[in-house]
Amino acid sequence: MAVSSAIPGFVVVIPAGGIGSRLWPLSRAEAPKFLHDLTGSGHSLLRDTWDRTVPLAGADQVVVVTGVAHELAVLEELPELSAANVLLESEPRDSTAAIGLAAAVVERRAPGAIIGSFSADHFIRDTAGFHQAVREAVAVAATGRIATIGIEPTAPAVGYGYIHANGGLEIPGAPNAEGVRSFKEKPNRTTAKRYLATGEYLWNAGMYVAPAAVILEWIARSEPELAAGLAEIADAWDTAARDEVVARVWPGLKKVAIDYVVAEPAAAAGALAVVRGSFDWDDVGDFEAISRLHQTDAGGDLVVFGGESPAVVAEDSTGVVFAQSGRVISLIGIKDVVVVDTEDALLVTTKEHAQRVKSIVDALRLSGRSEVL
Amino acid sequence: MAVSSAIPGFVVVIPAGGIGSRLWPLSRAEAPKFLHDLTGSGHSLLRDTWDRTVPLAGADQVVVVTGVAHELAVLEELPELSAANVLLESEPRDSTAAIGLAAAVVERRAPGAIIGSFSADHFIRDTAGFHQAVREAVAVAATGRIATIGIEPTAPAVGYGYIHANGGLEIPGAPNAEGVRSFKEKPNRTTAKRYLATGEYLWNAGMYVAPAAVILEWIARSEPELAAGLAEIADAWDTAARDEVVARVWPGLKKVAIDYVVAEPAAAAGALAVVRGSFDWDDVGDFEAISRLHQTDAGGDLVVFGGESPAVVAEDSTGVVFAQSGRVISLIGIKDVVVVDTEDALLVTTKEHAQRVKSIVDALRLSGRSEVL
Repeated sequence: MAVSSAIPGFVVVIPAGGIGSRLWPLSRAEAPKFLHDLTGSGHSLLRDTWDRTVPLAGADQVVVVTGVAHELAVLEELPELSAANVLLESEPRDSTAAIGLAAAVVERRAPGAIIGSFSADHFIRDTAGFHQAVREAVAVAATGRIATIGIEPTAPAVGYGYIHANGGLEIPGAPNAEGVRSFKEKPNRTTAKRYLATGEYLWNAGMYVAPAAVILEWIARSEPELAAGLAEIADAWDTAARDEVVARVWPGLKKVAIDYVVAEPAAAAGALAVVRGSFDWDDVGDFEAISRLHQTDAGGDLVVFGGESPAVVAEDSTGVVFAQSGRVISLIGIKDVVVVDTEDALLVTTKEHAQRVKSIVDALRLSGRSEVL
Repeated sequence: MAVSSAIPGFVVVIPAGGIGSRLWPLSRAEAPKFLHDLTGSGHSLLRDTWDRTVPLAGADQVVVVTGVAHELAVLEELPELSAANVLLESEPRDSTAAIGLAAAVVERRAPGAIIGSFSADHFIRDTAGFHQAVREAVAVAATGRIATIGIEPTAPAVGYGYIHANGGLEIPGAPNAEGVRSFKEKPNRTTAKRYLATGEYLWNAGMYVAPAAVILEWIARSEPELAAGLAEIADAWDTAARDEVVARVWPGLKKVAIDYVVAEPAAAAGALAVVRGSFDWDDVGDFEAISRLHQTDAGGDLVVFGGESPAVVAEDSTGVVFAQSGRVISLIGIKDVVVVDTEDALLVTTKEHAQRVKSIVDALRLSGRSEVL
């Protein structure tokens, strides 16, 4: 049952995947980013995503796509989620397969549905602003377009992709919808500053809202084999044949991001619009972000989180400490530090180098230490 | 049996005590500094001290004073040490009690012996230079004086006390012996630079060489109660009454450093000489020292030690890592760092702040976390 303010015919899709390499060793294959409370909210990012999106669709209209290894953890975080709405990936096949599977299953269960895909591990404080943007995006989707929600940047971030908007759309119910000139990869600092100055560039938050059938059409146009595989799996999903078909077809699906398969081609064809979102948003992509999201005053603090009662003794130190191991952690005279202390791995770096954590993960994988990844 | 080059009538005393608070959490009450290999020699500091001093006296002329908790560890490190030459302190009572006990026991076993006291947790690379200085100090002691060995400073160190030498002694066999004007506490940087420039100031390495009876006379002059207690214990030491007397008398002995009780009063009375030692010496007092002692080239390296095969993955990082817990340790872009990773405690600081580690230990003690000390 949808709650009173739910949007009729709207289904929320929450892809809950990804390891979050830049948050290693906090985020792991076994305990990925979306299962952690990284913002001090008291809830996991997944739970916060659920709470934020459920009012838009109703609890029985939310589908979570996740790996088989995380089924129990997801159901524990989201007891209201019906088991039928957990779509399990036997192995990760990237976002086109994940969102495409959801679109194909939803289209068969509720033909004509509009889906909205929102990552399980992002952070938004302004729920009302987010809801308004989604409602506009649904209005855009109702015209047959794909809508994305772009976030008005508040800083020249180099960790995000950008959407170059070009204004000019007049869609009823979507006053903030604009056309899209192009998608831009993560820029360097100079380019990011230029983007910010023009006001024409929005952060690509990876939020897509469209009729499920339209998503599937674009997958079929760009990647017909992938689309055929998804269709075969979706046809079998709610039947006894599911396990056999998934086991046979899913592992062969192409791993490719939905931005390349759907969003960029649709934008190039004029079939995609962006809703300018003025709410706060963060992809909680690295430890610098975690530190920022925990700041409650002018900064300069030491942010400590993780564990029941972290035992941190610090003098003249700033930065962020994730204290999971239960050990006593002492810091002296160290600025903007990032310390992540887990049972089997320790990371020490600075906020400045937060984006480089992924390279350590790569180095550990290459050196055969994947047991700590 | 003394080896051929041993000095007749000379007994080495090795006080093996002290927690080494500035080396926490590596050095602990249960595993103090002298039991660790902190210099990359492949041996504990205690073992290196033994190897360095035994040729001067012979293996059966070396006495180790240590806490009851460390008896087994000491005997494991020094299998050649006879059990009778391990003097156990039931609780720490500072250096006057420790060295005074050794002096009193040695004087009873070998009246007229000259003892030389050398800390168990210091570092010397130039063993020949050390031996030469000790032989000169014994020559000084043979005149009835107390000799200390002062180290020619190579840098304006602020972590050491200094001895102000004033030249002018003509003692046979001790060409480098000088009179002592005064002892100086740890100076500030400006004063240390001035000390270095004059050439008159030597590092106080806490090495004392004197007839055991002379040491005891000075203790009796400064602290008669303490001297009486030590005499009572020493009288009982090699008898069946030892345990009873120690249990009754030792805990009441005054805790005071031998510098104040013996060295400074003797210097003021003109009864103490300093042998100018030009060998290298380090008290391995903090993590900056450990880093320095491990440097094998021009510096800028990351020094990793501790554990069987430390798993450290570092990018653009310098400093020192003590990796004892067996966990994977990753460092990114962090300079002059000190990371000490043990089972129950982690320290992150910089070499610049190495001397401040003691304040963390104090804070932990005050906050009731003494289980990690």
